[in-house]
Amino acid sequence: MTATIDYADRRARLAEQLEHVGCDAIVVDHPPHVRWLTGFTGSNGAVLVHADGSAMVSTDGRYTTQIGIEAPDLELHLSRNCAVELAGRAGAAGVTRLGFEAAHVSVASMHRIAAALDPAAGAELTETVDLVEKLRAVKDDAELEALRDVADIAVRAFEGLVESGIIAAGTTERAIAADLEHRMRVGGADGIAFETIVASGPNSAKPHAGAEDRELCDGDLLTIDFGAAKNGYHSDMTRTLVVGGSEAAEDFAMEIYSTVLRAQLAGVAAARPGTPLADVDRACREVIAAAGHGEYFVHSTGHGIGLDVHEAPFASTRSKETLAAGMTLTIEPGIYVPGYGGVRIEDTVIVTDGEPEIITPLPKTV
Amino acid sequence: MTATIDYADRRARLAEQLEHVGCDAIVVDHPPHVRWLTGFTGSNGAVLVHADGSAMVSTDGRYTTQIGIEAPDLELHLSRNCAVELAGRAGAAGVTRLGFEAAHVSVASMHRIAAALDPAAGAELTETVDLVEKLRAVKDDAELEALRDVADIAVRAFEGLVESGIIAAGTTERAIAADLEHRMRVGGADGIAFETIVASGPNSAKPHAGAEDRELCDGDLLTIDFGAAKNGYHSDMTRTLVVGGSEAAEDFAMEIYSTVLRAQLAGVAAARPGTPLADVDRACREVIAAAGHGEYFVHSTGHGIGLDVHEAPFASTRSKETLAAGMTLTIEPGIYVPGYGGVRIEDTVIVTDGEPEIITPLPKTV
Repeated sequence: MTATIDYADRRARLAEQLEHVGCDAIVVDHPPHVRWLTGFTGSNGAVLVHADGSAMVSTDGRYTTQIGIEAPDLELHLSRNCAVELAGRAGAAGVTRLGFEAAHVSVASMHRIAAALDPAAGAELTETVDLVEKLRAVKDDAELEALRDVADIAVRAFEGLVESGIIAAGTTERAIAADLEHRMRVGGADGIAFETIVASGPNSAKPHAGAEDRELCDGDLLTIDFGAAKNGYHSDMTRTLVVGGSEAAEDFAMEIYSTVLRAQLAGVAAARPGTPLADVDRACREVIAAAGHGEYFVHSTGHGIGLDVHEAPFASTRSKETLAAGMTLTIEPGIYVPGYGGVRIEDTVIVTDGEPEIITPLPKTV
Repeated sequence: MTATIDYADRRARLAEQLEHVGCDAIVVDHPPHVRWLTGFTGSNGAVLVHADGSAMVSTDGRYTTQIGIEAPDLELHLSRNCAVELAGRAGAAGVTRLGFEAAHVSVASMHRIAAALDPAAGAELTETVDLVEKLRAVKDDAELEALRDVADIAVRAFEGLVESGIIAAGTTERAIAADLEHRMRVGGADGIAFETIVASGPNSAKPHAGAEDRELCDGDLLTIDFGAAKNGYHSDMTRTLVVGGSEAAEDFAMEIYSTVLRAQLAGVAAARPGTPLADVDRACREVIAAAGHGEYFVHSTGHGIGLDVHEAPFASTRSKETLAAGMTLTIEPGIYVPGYGGVRIEDTVIVTDGEPEIITPLPKTV
């Protein structure tokens, strides 16, 4: 990445939020949040951010070398129980209202953190909701670069997969997944973003199938939902093909394909700053409902993507939030007909002040 | 798998535990626990188990087809908020003490579950600790088969990697990781168990390095820690090599290698039923301390493996538990010299009434 990340600025923006929720400090140990706030990429760590923006970190002995490289400017306290360690230091430093992330801290951890904070001194824990999530929802330039980079790895891998000719009757779903994943890996990915879905024929009626030993048959709908991971960032896209090409497809398969495609294009067109996310969902859902397949669109329309594969914002019928420039969003309507098969088409877009930027620009044809 | 899994028996064993902790029922939504108790493999689900062993499940609309196949015998209630849905049904059915897993339920989820349970009727939530974990620690025959199978995939992939000749000066860590992962995938894995570690030269001093663009040099210590995933089960093993073979190695590298190897063999030998896990840890730690490198063994000795990569039992200086036949355990001592490099050697064993069964039987030579 050429754009640099200003972790201190991110912590300062979180610190501003602390004042609004009446906390002196917050302890964060959710790994993507620790990474976003400090640069530390290990699996066990925590950061304590005070309302004045000052911070300290904790990790265990496995990561001493690594954290010194990744977060060299932050005071380090080694512990296996990172959040507990930092809560104890917060209490000792006079913090009386310590925030913690209620969505990411288990009940058992909360008890240990509370005990370390020293309630005898009158200090107390305060649940915070979505503070870091909301900050992370709008990506900075370094993040957008990372997201374009990792999406491009996936796009190139898929192009290679299609060109290889492996997608043909007789190939197993598993072999296609293995090939696609290897292409992403040698193309520069650190790994995959989530379990690759290669779902053919009736399997494609399961929105979250895996990749099994089923062999493809001509005329099968074939849904491939896949993503790469690199430098902590993820990509996510789906294409549905027909094995043997459109001439092998049944009319009904083509009908649901064209319906989903129109829905997906309507969703992409709606992804503008200021648009309620519920309206993006509705844009897709109305097309599918109008075609008489509303009952078969059994999931929400999309989600943000970044250090998590699924993160704010979320586009569903229940969404209350509004899109802003710099947000990412997947747009992935689908139709799933049990016993028959299904179609899903998914792009990831970056919301901009102009047209949405599609960072997964593969053709959308069967 | 040829051995069949008796999910009802597993639920009955959990139900027995409920009586001991004074619960009428328990709601479980931790994915590996839901899978272990029901067979459902989706990412969003919950199961409610009553003290009489009866049960119902919940998942969302994406998984309707799948759960009907995987858990056909269980009453299904569709919801996006699975645990909340089942807590509401528990309350309506007269449950007054509903257990939940304090280590796996977030504080925010607990509030939603509590609200659904209907406290007006006097029902209350009860935190449970490690009930499912303790049951899962001793594997049944089907699980042991799955674990041998997935370990064998990893072993064969590593053998292929070594035979390919790719491990040589000039190859990048990343290329080795990609090759090894592809071998596991085409060898039958659903994916990898965790981010593959290929750490060479000074990188090998980081116990949890990744796989970077560093090119191998002759004489480098090269630590490869990797695992496959299949049917929900995982493998985990580590080998350290010297690039260019032992003739290329510095004396100090060979000294720490032979020390770690002696420690690892001592740990394996200690893995017998009835042995305290702290003693397995001590068996490794004493060898390394006696060689003068105690300060460089910066992590614990091992962990169980199954549906989670890291699960009970745990072997560390703080362990209080005792090994039993049917448990799995990794034995993975290491020496990490900052700035120089490190060595880790790891096998996974199944504890039996006789010798420990090493399911990762690769040579342990540089």
